[in-house]
Amino acid sequence: MAVYTEVSDEELAAFAAQYDIGQVQAFKGIAEGVENSNYLLETDRDQFILTLYEKRTKPEDLPFFLDLMEHLAAQGIACPTPIHGQDGLALRQLSGKPAAMVSFLKGISARTIKPWHCQELGRALAEFHLAGLDFKAQRTNALSVAGWRPLFEASRPGADGIASGLENLIADELSRLEVEWPVDLPRGVIHADLFPDNVFFLGDKLSGLIDFYFACTDFLAYDIAVCVNAWCFEKDLSFNATKARLLLGAYEKVRRLSNAEVAALPLLCRGAAMRFLLTRLYDWLNTPAGAFVTRKDPREYLKKLRFHQGVKRAEAYGLDAR
Amino acid sequence: MAVYTEVSDEELAAFAAQYDIGQVQAFKGIAEGVENSNYLLETDRDQFILTLYEKRTKPEDLPFFLDLMEHLAAQGIACPTPIHGQDGLALRQLSGKPAAMVSFLKGISARTIKPWHCQELGRALAEFHLAGLDFKAQRTNALSVAGWRPLFEASRPGADGIASGLENLIADELSRLEVEWPVDLPRGVIHADLFPDNVFFLGDKLSGLIDFYFACTDFLAYDIAVCVNAWCFEKDLSFNATKARLLLGAYEKVRRLSNAEVAALPLLCRGAAMRFLLTRLYDWLNTPAGAFVTRKDPREYLKKLRFHQGVKRAEAYGLDAR
Repeated sequence: MAVYTEVSDEELAAFAAQYDIGQVQAFKGIAEGVENSNYLLETDRDQFILTLYEKRTKPEDLPFFLDLMEHLAAQGIACPTPIHGQDGLALRQLSGKPAAMVSFLKGISARTIKPWHCQELGRALAEFHLAGLDFKAQRTNALSVAGWRPLFEASRPGADGIASGLENLIADELSRLEVEWPVDLPRGVIHADLFPDNVFFLGDKLSGLIDFYFACTDFLAYDIAVCVNAWCFEKDLSFNATKARLLLGAYEKVRRLSNAEVAALPLLCRGAAMRFLLTRLYDWLNTPAGAFVTRKDPREYLKKLRFHQGVKRAEAYGLDAR
Repeated sequence: MAVYTEVSDEELAAFAAQYDIGQVQAFKGIAEGVENSNYLLETDRDQFILTLYEKRTKPEDLPFFLDLMEHLAAQGIACPTPIHGQDGLALRQLSGKPAAMVSFLKGISARTIKPWHCQELGRALAEFHLAGLDFKAQRTNALSVAGWRPLFEASRPGADGIASGLENLIADELSRLEVEWPVDLPRGVIHADLFPDNVFFLGDKLSGLIDFYFACTDFLAYDIAVCVNAWCFEKDLSFNATKARLLLGAYEKVRRLSNAEVAALPLLCRGAAMRFLLTRLYDWLNTPAGAFVTRKDPREYLKKLRFHQGVKRAEAYGLDAR
């Protein structure tokens, strides 16, 4: 939730002139996405989102993200689609940063998650997974199990200062995850960061998915595990099994999970909790004082991890035994 | 440039239902205004700006600000106008904060100031001053000369850490300003914070003035002095006399300055530089590490103050001798 890069009015005018979008009438930095600078750009014809990619988004990954959004939008998934300039390009430079303009999606993020939001999410997630199956490009998930140990080692000295015993807990859990992590579940494009901020609703319907800048190729069921972590705990971090059941049930109406995916779900949920625990821990310990970013408390994901450690079978998430 | 308060989707829906504005379709925190939380609220009928007033805006001042905007808009000044709910109220509560919704203004702030921007600004400033003359309510300018010494005393211990000799320079200048500050110049409603962020342009025309949350009753010429400081220095802090001449010339085509105002202008410019030097110094020394705010360098206004200290007559700002 931050705007980092200032765009001058002259740079904006020159940038906008490369597109057939009409006259720019408003340009506002918006609090959307954590990693990049996002602007609402309004012309006399339409509204667009202009994104400047900041340093945590690698330029070499941008074609994957933009091509994916274009592919998904063409398949009918409600997501931003890149706008091409008169030269055919969707990716160019602005204020010294890689930049792209995408279509504007109506909708509002749910800040208070209701069960029906989870049901809508489950359906949309499965539809997204199916629509991504014929997307050809691949991108490794750098924040899957192989990426966790380096984050842990970098954060290790500060871990116990965040929560007593955290270093040992992570060390033990990580060793287990590295041994037991599945190798043969169904793969495809996953969003990998489908938090409530990245899902829009309009009335009682999901109206769009945004922020595909962590998208990658990984187990589809891992994406479900991320969503279970992000959507199915209450603010007091109690687990809402009704929400999980609705999420998984709606998902399965579109894409039935295999027995192997069901069996792996508790472990995948532990892994997803570990991923956010580690990145939050690392960011907490490495965000300079005064940085223009709100740090997120890593202990939230410690508590979620502990919940999943107590789960033996996917029935705890509301899936029917099979 | 910050969003402080999170508004839940349920709170937003209940709030919007109090107005006859249609169905909410988008709601985005925007980087506009430094002191308050601003959101772009879009319905199926129109766009609005929703502001939550944070702690630096006093609730008791809000009727003055809202009434002023409504008065000015009714007089044809391009500025946001408060939207009244079905109960007739413009000011209500949202997420525990005072909140108001105003009309959305098209336009883009100039980040690179060109001479023509200053000309447009001068005209609009004078039109605003004339439109405000029959506004009945009064609000003291707490950040005029009487308010500067308390800010200085609170910042004094840290001043020399910001710039060598700063404490003595401010002490000397402040004593002089307190003695020489005018008492009998033409008064009226001033904006008091008309920085480039707060002025919108569309094509080659000024399209609106925003952010009236420092507006108060003071010398009209002091508002000009604020603008000279904010608009007529280059990024290297050299003074651009052409911009000042255009600003003042366009102002005088609408509202002719009295001889006393002309004579006072150099001192008013010193005062305006002092005001922003002091508030920036205070904020610099008192902004907690990790705060979600970008601190502004007080030394910018130290340099501007030094420039004005060298000015003997208003001709230096491009005004004709009279």
